[in-house]
Amino acid sequence: MSLIVQKYGGSSVADATSVRRVARRIVETKRAGNDVVVVVSAMGDTTDELLDLATEVSPNPPGRELDMLLTAGERISMAVLAMAIHDLGEEGRSYTGSQAGLITDSAHGAARIIDVTPGRIRHAIAEGAIPIVAGFQGVSYESKDITTLGRGGSDTTAVALAAALGADVCEIYTDVDGVFSADPRVVPAARQVPLIAHEEMLELAAAGAKVLHLRCVEYARRSEIPIHVRSSFSDRQGTWVVDLTQPLPDIVPIAGGTPVEQPIIAGVAHDLNDCKITVVGVPDRPGEAALIFTAVADAGVNVDMIVQNVSVEETGLTDVTFTCPVASRQVALDALTAAQELVGYRDLRSDDGIAKISLVGAGMRSHPGVSATFFKALADAGINISMITTSEIRISVVTSKDVAEDAVRAVHTAFGLDADGEAVVYAGTGR
Amino acid sequence: MSLIVQKYGGSSVADATSVRRVARRIVETKRAGNDVVVVVSAMGDTTDELLDLATEVSPNPPGRELDMLLTAGERISMAVLAMAIHDLGEEGRSYTGSQAGLITDSAHGAARIIDVTPGRIRHAIAEGAIPIVAGFQGVSYESKDITTLGRGGSDTTAVALAAALGADVCEIYTDVDGVFSADPRVVPAARQVPLIAHEEMLELAAAGAKVLHLRCVEYARRSEIPIHVRSSFSDRQGTWVVDLTQPLPDIVPIAGGTPVEQPIIAGVAHDLNDCKITVVGVPDRPGEAALIFTAVADAGVNVDMIVQNVSVEETGLTDVTFTCPVASRQVALDALTAAQELVGYRDLRSDDGIAKISLVGAGMRSHPGVSATFFKALADAGINISMITTSEIRISVVTSKDVAEDAVRAVHTAFGLDADGEAVVYAGTGR
Repeated sequence: MSLIVQKYGGSSVADATSVRRVARRIVETKRAGNDVVVVVSAMGDTTDELLDLATEVSPNPPGRELDMLLTAGERISMAVLAMAIHDLGEEGRSYTGSQAGLITDSAHGAARIIDVTPGRIRHAIAEGAIPIVAGFQGVSYESKDITTLGRGGSDTTAVALAAALGADVCEIYTDVDGVFSADPRVVPAARQVPLIAHEEMLELAAAGAKVLHLRCVEYARRSEIPIHVRSSFSDRQGTWVVDLTQPLPDIVPIAGGTPVEQPIIAGVAHDLNDCKITVVGVPDRPGEAALIFTAVADAGVNVDMIVQNVSVEETGLTDVTFTCPVASRQVALDALTAAQELVGYRDLRSDDGIAKISLVGAGMRSHPGVSATFFKALADAGINISMITTSEIRISVVTSKDVAEDAVRAVHTAFGLDADGEAVVYAGTGR
Repeated sequence: MSLIVQKYGGSSVADATSVRRVARRIVETKRAGNDVVVVVSAMGDTTDELLDLATEVSPNPPGRELDMLLTAGERISMAVLAMAIHDLGEEGRSYTGSQAGLITDSAHGAARIIDVTPGRIRHAIAEGAIPIVAGFQGVSYESKDITTLGRGGSDTTAVALAAALGADVCEIYTDVDGVFSADPRVVPAARQVPLIAHEEMLELAAAGAKVLHLRCVEYARRSEIPIHVRSSFSDRQGTWVVDLTQPLPDIVPIAGGTPVEQPIIAGVAHDLNDCKITVVGVPDRPGEAALIFTAVADAGVNVDMIVQNVSVEETGLTDVTFTCPVASRQVALDALTAAQELVGYRDLRSDDGIAKISLVGAGMRSHPGVSATFFKALADAGINISMITTSEIRISVVTSKDVAEDAVRAVHTAFGLDADGEAVVYAGTGR
């Protein structure tokens, strides 16, 4: 018998029919001999509709009240799902984030989980019930006010609950079959990845892969919870996100328990939501970068890639380029404009027409040729690179947005990731 | 400075425009130097829509989950109202029933308030904020589950909070100007009642007047909270429901503080939602009525009026007639059918085509002629009476449904209640 946490997103519970389908899956899992805890998002577009209502009433609603409003969405979906389960003869019991013990800080709209005290959930499991927990929400330990974790927070709720309950797996149900080697809308030959390391998934999520939220993967990695990303519309196995440095847990249905070989590359991700800002003519002296990025950070802008050019000797000036979300572009430019005298730069330039292409794979560590293959694939496709950054298991480049899809396909093919190609593999567990 | 609890019903907060209008009224009350606590119902038809959703998913949803679902309605309205208040420069802070300390029993869908511990509300008032409390909901003291008080429960929430906070008045905002001497749709000459005793209001509510919920008036009477029923669409004074055996509190704007005279009759109410059931041929021996009404009560049917005819001597049989809500008719008939052998009656008859007409007024106590005038008015209008019951301050009769409106108008006119007539008065405070 396993303890399984299942998380269903808004598209899986969009209407009464979907809710009943999800209820059947939950009840089947329970009747197969497992304990099941469910985390559910708001139905379909409910959250957006509630946001529209808020905007209609107030141009700038306070965070505390916005959180109170938005949490009505999961309240509806969890109660309805519990009813559908009840109708199938099992006892579904819904719990708000607060009732389930999701304790957070007080950052309304982007609260962080501080503690999970799921006493009532444990009690419900012990009584043979199926607890249905509202995703995305918690309660502040200081103010006792209701908080939300921000978009994608339901995945995090699920993993946090799985960790606190010592669950065997956290199943994240979505409308795709799992994690793919690239976005299938861009690369039709992309293949589903059966098994991926937490750290690889983390890099893919950071690089723009939408299927799992960065925070949820990070939480799963730290608490060593296996995630199973799969479709709520089929019974197929999805993608297992696991700790590949350890023997696989029994619940992962891979012959022999441990895979002998893993592809060097987990996948190719791309992100079209960044922009590039160049601070032109920065004096080439110590502390300048600190001034620039303090100004940007103080404005709340998350900087991703940073590149500083070599200074031109005659002028003693250099250029500093960074990327950040397009949504933060104006805030970043305003912050830098306000800091111009302090920093002493000459000019600001910004470019929305960029894309970030990232190659992720834990096998990179032991295969020095990966970056060369990556750059050659882009060069052969005639694609120009304007920025490069690397981590231990990721290489990212910035290209022009209009060649982004060509770049993804070229790289995908070059690493043999296409479904009819031959993927480059590495020994999987010796790392 | 007064402490004022204001309750707004669903029609007062049906859309963003209404919410902003209500917010302005709340802020004006606050800025006039009062402390304000607001209780709000779900917006417009939200509760019905949520009920429809539940029905779509499950034919027989469990009460715990139905309560969880329905309470999403007030969660939305209170958050949105707090936002609108925030927008006007005051701090609205929304609180669920649970957060506001509305402690109930565990009867889902019809929970009773056991205690009110409004510590967070007091704290918010002390900080100068305007607490917005979800009506209709609470939390079970045993299970810690969310409960609802049943329809009309928001009025009860408001009065209960007003009592616990020691408020000066509980203002119930609705879409009519107050309590009328009869339903203005039936009696165009009905007039608004400026002042009415709790006990009179209680009888009117029990007799079918819709403006206030019976439980809320009962709660107000016991805790001696003045209620001011008024329209959220105007600034006019509405109807004050007060303890007329005491000097009026200062907050009631009546010249001289105490009215010298009150009409004998507060109003005429009618109720079309009852049916009449006759148990025919009941043996006339002790204990028969107990058998009948135990069977009916065990089936959960609320019986209103009861009449037993004199038995016909030859047969030793009698008939027992009672009224109950039409919605309970089939349940009552089934219960009686099951008890036929035990009771030993001959036949059952039921009639949906009845109306109950009630005359209410505390002045009846000291005016013995009231019932004679009442019956004469009906007789003059050619209206036949099939049942009669009286309480200390109420006379109710059952007529055929098709003459109900004629009966109400005839009685209303006979007691001089018509707006252009001369109402019969009695000394108001000496009782």
